[in-house]
Amino acid sequence: MKPLSRAAIVAVGSELLTPSKIDTNSLYVTEQLNRLGIDVVTKIVAGDDRDGLSRAFRTLLEQADLVVSCGGLGPTDDDVTREAIAQALERTLTEDPAIAEALRQRFAARGLGVMPEINRRQAMVPAGARPLENARGSAPGLWIEAGERVVVLLPGPPRELKPMVTALVDGPLRERAAGVPLVRRVVRVTGRFESQVDETLAPLYRRWRSRTPGVSATILASPGSIELHLSSRAASLQGGEAALEIAVSEAVAALGDDAYSADGRRLEQVVGDLLVERRLRVAVAESCTGGLVVSRLTDVPGSSRYLDLAVVTYANAAKTAVLGVPSALIQEHGAVSRPVVVAMAEGIRQKAGAEVGVAVSGIAGPDGGVPGKPVGTVHVAALLGSETRTREFRFLGDRELVKFQASQAAIDLVRRLLLGSP
Amino acid sequence: MKPLSRAAIVAVGSELLTPSKIDTNSLYVTEQLNRLGIDVVTKIVAGDDRDGLSRAFRTLLEQADLVVSCGGLGPTDDDVTREAIAQALERTLTEDPAIAEALRQRFAARGLGVMPEINRRQAMVPAGARPLENARGSAPGLWIEAGERVVVLLPGPPRELKPMVTALVDGPLRERAAGVPLVRRVVRVTGRFESQVDETLAPLYRRWRSRTPGVSATILASPGSIELHLSSRAASLQGGEAALEIAVSEAVAALGDDAYSADGRRLEQVVGDLLVERRLRVAVAESCTGGLVVSRLTDVPGSSRYLDLAVVTYANAAKTAVLGVPSALIQEHGAVSRPVVVAMAEGIRQKAGAEVGVAVSGIAGPDGGVPGKPVGTVHVAALLGSETRTREFRFLGDRELVKFQASQAAIDLVRRLLLGSP
Repeated sequence: MKPLSRAAIVAVGSELLTPSKIDTNSLYVTEQLNRLGIDVVTKIVAGDDRDGLSRAFRTLLEQADLVVSCGGLGPTDDDVTREAIAQALERTLTEDPAIAEALRQRFAARGLGVMPEINRRQAMVPAGARPLENARGSAPGLWIEAGERVVVLLPGPPRELKPMVTALVDGPLRERAAGVPLVRRVVRVTGRFESQVDETLAPLYRRWRSRTPGVSATILASPGSIELHLSSRAASLQGGEAALEIAVSEAVAALGDDAYSADGRRLEQVVGDLLVERRLRVAVAESCTGGLVVSRLTDVPGSSRYLDLAVVTYANAAKTAVLGVPSALIQEHGAVSRPVVVAMAEGIRQKAGAEVGVAVSGIAGPDGGVPGKPVGTVHVAALLGSETRTREFRFLGDRELVKFQASQAAIDLVRRLLLGSP
Repeated sequence: MKPLSRAAIVAVGSELLTPSKIDTNSLYVTEQLNRLGIDVVTKIVAGDDRDGLSRAFRTLLEQADLVVSCGGLGPTDDDVTREAIAQALERTLTEDPAIAEALRQRFAARGLGVMPEINRRQAMVPAGARPLENARGSAPGLWIEAGERVVVLLPGPPRELKPMVTALVDGPLRERAAGVPLVRRVVRVTGRFESQVDETLAPLYRRWRSRTPGVSATILASPGSIELHLSSRAASLQGGEAALEIAVSEAVAALGDDAYSADGRRLEQVVGDLLVERRLRVAVAESCTGGLVVSRLTDVPGSSRYLDLAVVTYANAAKTAVLGVPSALIQEHGAVSRPVVVAMAEGIRQKAGAEVGVAVSGIAGPDGGVPGKPVGTVHVAALLGSETRTREFRFLGDRELVKFQASQAAIDLVRRLLLGSP
């Protein structure tokens, strides 16, 4: 029998075609399939419509050798997945007496009395289908072989679906999988544009592709965040992981300190770890970021080891009263200026008795821009001992995006200061 | 020309076929299309593979009269959406000189120098395509007519996609839409469990369904947030909006002050508006929320009108030094206690010279729980004049979830204090 290597996932439910619900089952299913070396090549969301869903099954069976559906196995008229797959495979749908009996017993055992007639729908199966036990709900899953292809029907509720997927991955799917596991690593980058990262890495892409096992690379960029996603498919999990380890080292060597994480850690975690390692404490003074820098730093468990105090001095008077920034300095340079952020960082560092001080001041918008200092102008400063680092930025985007990019810049400036890197 | 009524959405990107990324653009696109009476009949996620994507376009053009793609318009080799649609529609792909020139100017205007050759890919368009302006990025969208069908290619980054969708819905799409509009309203609720909201509203559900036009209701709940989603499909936008307006009033009357927003405003915006209206200023002192309360309050444009100063006093010594909380009080009751949050709120109110003081202290976890005060224990206090409000919570969930729920509780306590409601 040909091993399974390409999967398609169908999420079933008209609610998934509205603005308020999204399919998340497919993430779990994907993760589990990838562990067996099965790729997900496409996903479809289909409404509760038998013909449409049947068409979706047919299309997917042309592209994939494993089709997994999630949802539409309930007892109501809306639940059409069983009928749709029977139609797509041109098989008859008949009641499975064993499933019907199990349903009846389930009702009795839970004190729900006689099973409503409608629930018998859940015992209908296409010819040749094998039921998959549902320990947490009434709808059994179904395993259907169609030539060399396999269709798996799973229930929609995540708490019913997940144990069923686990059982499949440990059982029948493992036996049928191609077994060339796909492994992944992510390298996170700051301080460069996407195109600059791409240019730096272009020679590596070619080298990685040509190796055995090959390594594929994709760049995912959003404002303030660039991620290099590397993946490799190898005969063994170990082989893939080793290939990725080499590729990650090469990427990090090419990107230098602009690559801040290759192990899933977020920027605030990386900085937190550096502070713990160096036994330093940080204090934060924010204006335009309004607390986002300290909120991110304190998202890290155990951050109380290196953070005692932060202030958000939104008003100029607060910068003077709380941080001791001379009002003359603010008058001369403006609150959004290099001298003022340096004074803020110095002020908070002294107030907190911390070794590291970091400060941000800027114009988050939508109002507040002035000639020469448009919305998005941000100054950051970070201090350690006698060393002072400052940067000026012009960020694009709306208020929340400017806040995020400014927080990213401030946290990254601390990182570079601690590393002694440019 | 036949009006457009059935849409399909393609989310493009191999990263959307991994366990770590999910398409969310389609939610916004769906919401906007629904407003024009255009239903979304299916959604597909396709990888960065020209042939696969081209096949997806062809399949969808058989099922829908409007196909909207999101993503794959960037400058790299991975960005294949332009090529895939050209292949699906069997059209030639040529460089549009106007787009190329606009790209060059964009690079020059941002001080990025000469445009890299690779970005010229973004100027390639299928024959007959019309560019859609991208005010926030380099990749223009494309509008392509194919007989009576329309294909719209949108960029992937939400901040670029959203304004483009808005412009389409106000312009060319509105002219082409079939129009039995589906309208939606959301009522946001705090301070109750999902089941309590459901019980309160059950009699209304029946009344709403029996009216013409009918109103459907769904409750979406997540920790710290309950939303009542109402929708109505009416012959006219006005008819649907009027039916919803009545239903919203009835829901709000039933829920009282627990319903904090029926117009899309977030909790922090509602509180900001109350502060502006009452000409009051607020000052914030945080411990376990680590700056999240003030960060959310300053997400609101114009928040400098009512917020001057906030502090994050993570360490007990900082609570004493900066906020004047007596260290004896902390020793007697612990930092996570009613007396200490009241003292924090009083301290920050005085320091900032604000009328309203709000404070939070709690145990965000994963460590720090003690007998009688497990992880998730949170105290909040809010003061105005001589009035003092306090609440104690035991939140479930991980560190970030506890932080979010605690911030929600603190901001909501200020809202109730300002409204004089229980």
